Amino acid sequence: MKSMLEKMVSKNQKWTADGHLASYIPELMKACPSHLGVSICDCEGVKFSAGDCNQPFTIQSVAKPLVLLLALSDSDEKSVFDKIGVEPTGMPFNSIDCFANPDFRRKTNPMINVGALTTYSFINGKDDKERFNRILHFVQKLSGNPNLTYDHNVYMSERETGYRNKAIGYLLQTAGIIDENIESFIDIHFKVSSINVTCRDLASIGSILANRGVNPLTGESIVPKRHSQIANAIMTTCGMYNSSGAFAVDVGLPSKSGVGGGILSVAPGKMGIGIYGPALDEDGNSLAGTKLIEDLSRELNLSLY
Amino acid sequence: MKSMLEKMVSKNQKWTADGHLASYIPELMKACPSHLGVSICDCEGVKFSAGDCNQPFTIQSVAKPLVLLLALSDSDEKSVFDKIGVEPTGMPFNSIDCFANPDFRRKTNPMINVGALTTYSFINGKDDKERFNRILHFVQKLSGNPNLTYDHNVYMSERETGYRNKAIGYLLQTAGIIDENIESFIDIHFKVSSINVTCRDLASIGSILANRGVNPLTGESIVPKRHSQIANAIMTTCGMYNSSGAFAVDVGLPSKSGVGGGILSVAPGKMGIGIYGPALDEDGNSLAGTKLIEDLSRELNLSLY
Amino acid sequence: MKSMLEKMVSKNQKWTADGHLASYIPELMKACPSHLGVSICDCEGVKFSAGDCNQPFTIQSVAKPLVLLLALSDSDEKSVFDKIGVEPTGMPFNSIDCFANPDFRRKTNPMINVGALTTYSFINGKDDKERFNRILHFVQKLSGNPNLTYDHNVYMSERETGYRNKAIGYLLQTAGIIDENIESFIDIHFKVSSINVTCRDLASIGSILANRGVNPLTGESIVPKRHSQIANAIMTTCGMYNSSGAFAVDVGLPSKSGVGGGILSVAPGKMGIGIYGPALDEDGNSLAGTKLIEDLSRELNLSLY
Amino acid sequence: MKSMLEKMVSKNQKWTADGHLASYIPELMKACPSHLGVSICDCEGVKFSAGDCNQPFTIQSVAKPLVLLLALSDSDEKSVFDKIGVEPTGMPFNSIDCFANPDFRRKTNPMINVGALTTYSFINGKDDKERFNRILHFVQKLSGNPNLTYDHNVYMSERETGYRNKAIGYLLQTAGIIDENIESFIDIHFKVSSINVTCRDLASIGSILANRGVNPLTGESIVPKRHSQIANAIMTTCGMYNSSGAFAVDVGLPSKSGVGGGILSVAPGKMGIGIYGPALDEDGNSLAGTKLIEDLSRELNLSLY
Repeated sequence: MKSMLEKMVSKNQKWTADGHLASYIPELMKACPSHLGVSICDCEGVKFSAGDCNQPFTIQSVAKPLVLLLALSDSDEKSVFDKIGVEPTGMPFNSIDCFANPDFRRKTNPMINVGALTTYSFINGKDDKERFNRILHFVQKLSGNPNLTYDHNVYMSERETGYRNKAIGYLLQTAGIIDENIESFIDIHFKVSSINVTCRDLASIGSILANRGVNPLTGESIVPKRHSQIANAIMTTCGMYNSSGAFAVDVGLPSKSGVGGGILSVAPGKMGIGIYGPALDEDGNSLAGTKLIEDLSRELNLSLY
Repeated sequence: MKSMLEKMVSKNQKWTADGHLASYIPELMKACPSHLGVSICDCEGVKFSAGDCNQPFTIQSVAKPLVLLLALSDSDEKSVFDKIGVEPTGMPFNSIDCFANPDFRRKTNPMINVGALTTYSFINGKDDKERFNRILHFVQKLSGNPNLTYDHNVYMSERETGYRNKAIGYLLQTAGIIDENIESFIDIHFKVSSINVTCRDLASIGSILANRGVNPLTGESIVPKRHSQIANAIMTTCGMYNSSGAFAVDVGLPSKSGVGGGILSVAPGKMGIGIYGPALDEDGNSLAGTKLIEDLSRELNLSLY
Repeated sequence: MKSMLEKMVSKNQKWTADGHLASYIPELMKACPSHLGVSICDCEGVKFSAGDCNQPFTIQSVAKPLVLLLALSDSDEKSVFDKIGVEPTGMPFNSIDCFANPDFRRKTNPMINVGALTTYSFINGKDDKERFNRILHFVQKLSGNPNLTYDHNVYMSERETGYRNKAIGYLLQTAGIIDENIESFIDIHFKVSSINVTCRDLASIGSILANRGVNPLTGESIVPKRHSQIANAIMTTCGMYNSSGAFAVDVGLPSKSGVGGGILSVAPGKMGIGIYGPALDEDGNSLAGTKLIEDLSRELNLSLY
Repeated sequence: MKSMLEKMVSKNQKWTADGHLASYIPELMKACPSHLGVSICDCEGVKFSAGDCNQPFTIQSVAKPLVLLLALSDSDEKSVFDKIGVEPTGMPFNSIDCFANPDFRRKTNPMINVGALTTYSFINGKDDKERFNRILHFVQKLSGNPNLTYDHNVYMSERETGYRNKAIGYLLQTAGIIDENIESFIDIHFKVSSINVTCRDLASIGSILANRGVNPLTGESIVPKRHSQIANAIMTTCGMYNSSGAFAVDVGLPSKSGVGGGILSVAPGKMGIGIYGPALDEDGNSLAGTKLIEDLSRELNLSLY
């Protein structure tokens, strides 16, 4: 298995040259564009990795399904989905089109910024600090890595330049979706997006979602089966930005990507997969990473369809 | 199995009262709103049915993935998807918003009318008649039912009142997507939508898509595995009108519904499922049928996620 | 006056090289792009002309306010504006965005195709032929030119390629705005758009709108004062495609342009102005013609503001 | 003249009952909904007033053309209109649709919030305080009323609840339209909107725009003729929210309304008109005020068309 992964990293290395680092905050431009790594963690908790699998990168939007999972635990399914929909929108991840729509809820989902910012309002905690720490702790638990923390430079960079997210926040407040002080949720969002992970961490997280919410190594139930199904379903229809449809055709696995270059994939009943490749395609997904996982899905016959 | 299906029909019968028959053409109003039927066909070709499983109804949009499959065979994947995208659009099935968009292809898919009308242009045939007959024959082959034919009254009704589809046709011609005489494709579309099926037919069709393109009874390969994966993937992200996302969460199976009350569902590797229940919810899906298949998916643990 | 006009034609001749002939139907490409003509007709009926003032061209969208005037006479203000709004839309003249809008009426006006096609439904006449003849006769009366007729080649060319207008027609029928056979209105529209005029004709038409509906030469009231005010107001806010706002700033006169190269302008209480220059700017207005009328407005202090 | 104005106030008083006070900030709900006042100031500087003509109210959006005039003086026409367009948008005054549009400039104008916020960036001043004071001083000069100041309660109320304007500000910064600290422009905007005026003040301001920029009483040139033409033209096409088109048809005068209940109208070469009536129609314009000025325009034959 390890040698197959290594062969796939080698084979797809060439694609890293065709992508571009995320440029919207200066810190992300410091990544090495030729990096490519993959890690898998099966439903017995056995792990195989290849390439730049120990290279830390910021989790960015890959955190979205994880924050949703904690929101579902802290609140409940009905409350969350009364505010945020689950339909693909056909719009960019940072779209504000939903605010022009009479049926706001139907035009949002937790994988786009409007919906993701709203999920923070369902996280328990007496203040910002406690809310962020609970999210960080939850991600640590999912990944089995108690050392995860956030990258302060990326966080500061997001904070200084995240005008669009601030705008979305105020639009959510205008629309009455979030009543409380929106500034604090935006700040938590910047911190959460800056959590450093490796593709080994993502593989571990994926193995829990593949294993219906149960940690395959410890047998501990981390999230209810229903919640892991919700996350997997939403990742399938909405997880890969505006190429989620093509990804379903070519890979066929619930997945979520982030502009930091990470991809979290879930092969239900089989394994979790973590990918790192910071050179992105025009939809914001890791270019070489997408090619690699396409090969992996074909090789291991992982497609759900 | 049969008794379980019968119990499920009984249990969900009550929901038929909450839905409404499709009203856009008078002929569809003649259906009996309390009808509810289900049929499954597993990957050995064994069939179980319950309720109004022998009641014929018009296939309507359930034909869309089938026409796509024939288009992929008659032409090829690249040609088809160079014209029609595979991304969910977030818009109604009869939306014309894509025409206002600079990236037309990305705003269409074969499950909405704009994309579906375009698929007809990839069907071989020297004239309209031959094209329609090839599609009809293909649906007969998928369902293993050589007696399938179209409902002339529904066809005439569509023809007389289908202004919206005519408009979409001329917009496709304006946009240069379809060069040839669009009127003939619209006519074929009206005929194809009027093909009469039962939920037993849909279950058979589904069993082939569940069985990677191979007829489980005869062992004949009807469509390539890749094509059946494409159809399943697109049905997952775009098949249930504007509640495809919620359907993925609650049912978790590639499916396509039609306003005639049919639902075609695929449990890959396991079975095909056909549902009939003409009383629709506000998204245009069979209301009681959706409830029934949700129960079925839970009971048989069919969700992909 | 005549020499001033001649000087202005000479001065602005150079701009004709920067524009482009309308290309959407082949017939319009046969115009001579360097043509530029101007004609004015004051409120005593005195006329001055310069340049290519005798060159016939098709009236195209300049007919829109004229058809509106006849619709207002044949029907009444309330009926017409209950169906078509009077607000600028910010959208292209052939936009179909209004059909996606819950408040259809507010997103249309008689200067864009959707609204213009609707105006034909208010024209009296027992059949298509009579309706067209009444419009032609009305334009003859406004221009004082009983010889006006339509260009058969342009009409046939529109008919063959006017897919977009056909689509708009069917969308109007889908939306229930026009109940009757839409094909006949589209045909009338193609014929009306093909009426041949010169800029002398447009100046005469403009002089009646400048003179509150009264023919300055004969003293005959052609349209009620209220109707001429309506036409002037709508031409001001919506007459020059998507540069109506800039035209109000730079010229300041109620005006309507057409892709045939004509501009009809009205200086209320002072004069009508007709312009011909088939080389268009990117908004579809005569490029040199717009420059010329800007000079004319400044020179004669015609701006309303 | 005065008795005619009084008769018109009496006649239209009844309409005040059909409108509604602006409710988006609590302070505006304190106005008396039955108030109705009118004032005119002709091009000799002679003033006539009737009704609640001495009642102060906040200027709100009526300030938009005035800030534009100062921006044009402090900067220049080209710089301003390179950033903000002059076309009617067909969208609500607080729309953010322009940000989704590739041609941002064409989808904005200085009469909607996106454009108005941008105009502040062209106002000279070493800091916020100086910028605001220069605007206040300019409005004092236009109105000939050195006592004008802003309403601190309304300002604080706007500041606390103006989430939408904050969102628009951050979107402008995201889009790179405004580079500097957007928070300060939003604060100036809240203060400027809160300037208290009477309809006598608005009539004086209007008389200068009617008199091509020259104060009719003192003969002093306050703004260049070209700038007053620009303001009048933009008020014509975009000044009365989404009923600018209907207002052109029924009144025919360059005008700008505000949710405080004020209307500033200009009859070029004749007079300025100020209206106050805080009960608004559904477009946000003074309901009785619009009826009154329609009567006034007809009675005095003021329509430009």
